[in-house]
Amino acid sequence: MKNLTEDQLYAQLQVLVNSISDLDEEAMTQIQVRLDSLTKPQGSLGQLEHLAKQLGGIQRTAQPQILKKTVLLMAGDHGVVAEGVSAFPQEVTPQMVYNIINGGAAINVLARLAQADVVCTDVGVAFPLEGNCLHKRVADGTRNMTKGPAMTRLEALQALFVGAEVAQEKIQEGYNLLATGDLGIGNTTPSSAIVALLTDSPVKSVVGRGTGIDDEGLIRKRQVIEKAIAVNRPDVTDGLDVLRKVGGLEIAAIAGSIIQAAASHVPVVIDGFISTAGALIAAKLAPKSLDYMIPSHGSVEIGHRKALAALQLDPVLNLNMRLGEGTGAALTFQLVEAALHILYEMATFGDAGVSEKSN
Amino acid sequence: MKNLTEDQLYAQLQVLVNSISDLDEEAMTQIQVRLDSLTKPQGSLGQLEHLAKQLGGIQRTAQPQILKKTVLLMAGDHGVVAEGVSAFPQEVTPQMVYNIINGGAAINVLARLAQADVVCTDVGVAFPLEGNCLHKRVADGTRNMTKGPAMTRLEALQALFVGAEVAQEKIQEGYNLLATGDLGIGNTTPSSAIVALLTDSPVKSVVGRGTGIDDEGLIRKRQVIEKAIAVNRPDVTDGLDVLRKVGGLEIAAIAGSIIQAAASHVPVVIDGFISTAGALIAAKLAPKSLDYMIPSHGSVEIGHRKALAALQLDPVLNLNMRLGEGTGAALTFQLVEAALHILYEMATFGDAGVSEKSN
Repeated sequence: MKNLTEDQLYAQLQVLVNSISDLDEEAMTQIQVRLDSLTKPQGSLGQLEHLAKQLGGIQRTAQPQILKKTVLLMAGDHGVVAEGVSAFPQEVTPQMVYNIINGGAAINVLARLAQADVVCTDVGVAFPLEGNCLHKRVADGTRNMTKGPAMTRLEALQALFVGAEVAQEKIQEGYNLLATGDLGIGNTTPSSAIVALLTDSPVKSVVGRGTGIDDEGLIRKRQVIEKAIAVNRPDVTDGLDVLRKVGGLEIAAIAGSIIQAAASHVPVVIDGFISTAGALIAAKLAPKSLDYMIPSHGSVEIGHRKALAALQLDPVLNLNMRLGEGTGAALTFQLVEAALHILYEMATFGDAGVSEKSN
Repeated sequence: MKNLTEDQLYAQLQVLVNSISDLDEEAMTQIQVRLDSLTKPQGSLGQLEHLAKQLGGIQRTAQPQILKKTVLLMAGDHGVVAEGVSAFPQEVTPQMVYNIINGGAAINVLARLAQADVVCTDVGVAFPLEGNCLHKRVADGTRNMTKGPAMTRLEALQALFVGAEVAQEKIQEGYNLLATGDLGIGNTTPSSAIVALLTDSPVKSVVGRGTGIDDEGLIRKRQVIEKAIAVNRPDVTDGLDVLRKVGGLEIAAIAGSIIQAAASHVPVVIDGFISTAGALIAAKLAPKSLDYMIPSHGSVEIGHRKALAALQLDPVLNLNMRLGEGTGAALTFQLVEAALHILYEMATFGDAGVSEKSN
């Protein structure tokens, strides 16, 4: 994709977006019938039942299966950290990539527990990186969005396609349950900007403490985001314009991976605040991709609930987490699997000789 | 316990209650230090970090371990079903016990997924039962609480000790993570009565549709509960009085299992609405048992959130479930295990060469 022009990439994005189909209603109806025959009051397993149906609708079969699971962790840096918006220094981004490569980060621990893999992609880290991650860097971090667009339109499209390519590679390897994940010091700042713009919310209402800035830092962060929006005037009807002006390279890749998953009939679990900002971009560019998204947790980051509500995603986990990396999504994998175990392993009223509802 | 008098059982309950100790602050402090050394912003894993500390405080060690897990499912019937408060006929209670014995119920499926066992105990089913469950029946169901107390004080104490005994047996077999579970047609009715009384809430605000009664049934159910409370006038300062007058045999056993778990330094995951009613009784009888409870999901049943709030338990799962059996608790087991995996498997800032917070 690196050799394609901006226009060629944009045209390719439209092809991808237009290839996303509606969920298979027939499969979902068959699954509903099966769920209603199982020994439980109808609908009493709530979101698990919904997940079983969604998986069938996505995979276009009444017998959906999960084969292999992976977290697609996208890493990128942010020029806006020069404005003092993060509690951690920027060199933590590559340090944490190495930590992930070495298996010591939270996402490694939680993915192992879920029997899932983690694929780390350098979409735009600002420091040299070696080792066992996918090297698909579009730029050495974004530009400082208080002084102009964070990315060119070409860079944003390239980063979107990095995400799409990684998703497609993994899907071709047999992974059929994906999760988003992010890594990048400062990335709650562009995410807050995206959420403010795409949910039409005041900046103040969607800016939180990220990795842990103090009161003074929080005020500064709000001002930085307001300045970035004022300087760039993103067109909120154009997901790509919002993305390139106040977004991030890893956020673009997350959006791209979601769109590719949807185009490939693969469900994708959306992690926390940064991933949900990516999901907002994906939904803006490809509204049908929403049907392929599975919510995970509700983050501490105050803008997260607003972003989830805009996507009509109701988080299944409430753990007061604020780490990113895909940690909330990895914890959700077992719930998705639970939905299928319910579908296949429970006895029916007939099999078990249990009386049905009397009224 | 069956041969002891009411006074002897009550005295024994007091001994059990008084044996519950506070959590080990020293162990919790050590775990906090460890958590803060791990490669993540401090506190960013939220409830997982809290769970790691709680487990250490309960087990009185900075190296808590989970060995074996089981759901203690208590089954009982309710005389109040004669008032038409349930959508399912009463014979479904023994039918579902057999379904559980045969491994076909939702709790069997979800416990298997969590690599946990299920122990079903007949505390007071109203029909003959055979097969692979613990036969510890105190009575053939409760009496109709609109006409007088659901149980005698002796029966309530006996049922409490059934729960305590089962918990103790399992703990002696090496299980050190327990979950509550319930089974009993009609049991949202006594549970609603308990929640109304012990959270000082209007009956209307805590009565839901249970397994799925219609609008007319819902109105009847509220009236039935209001009548039971008016007829029995339970002393809300006395957990045992509330339990025996408007409770249930399986609810008593749930409360007893929680109290025994606490006395044995074993954490117990609290399932949905019926289990939380049992937890309210446990907390009333043994306030220190609260520290040993781990919340699971927030049920659709409208009184559940109120009951959880009264216990200061914040549910970690939001799945719109309303099935009981321990299903929400079984889904929570992996989250509890995730907390310990984080504690032991993550790299520290020092090990990983990651820079710490800059301000």
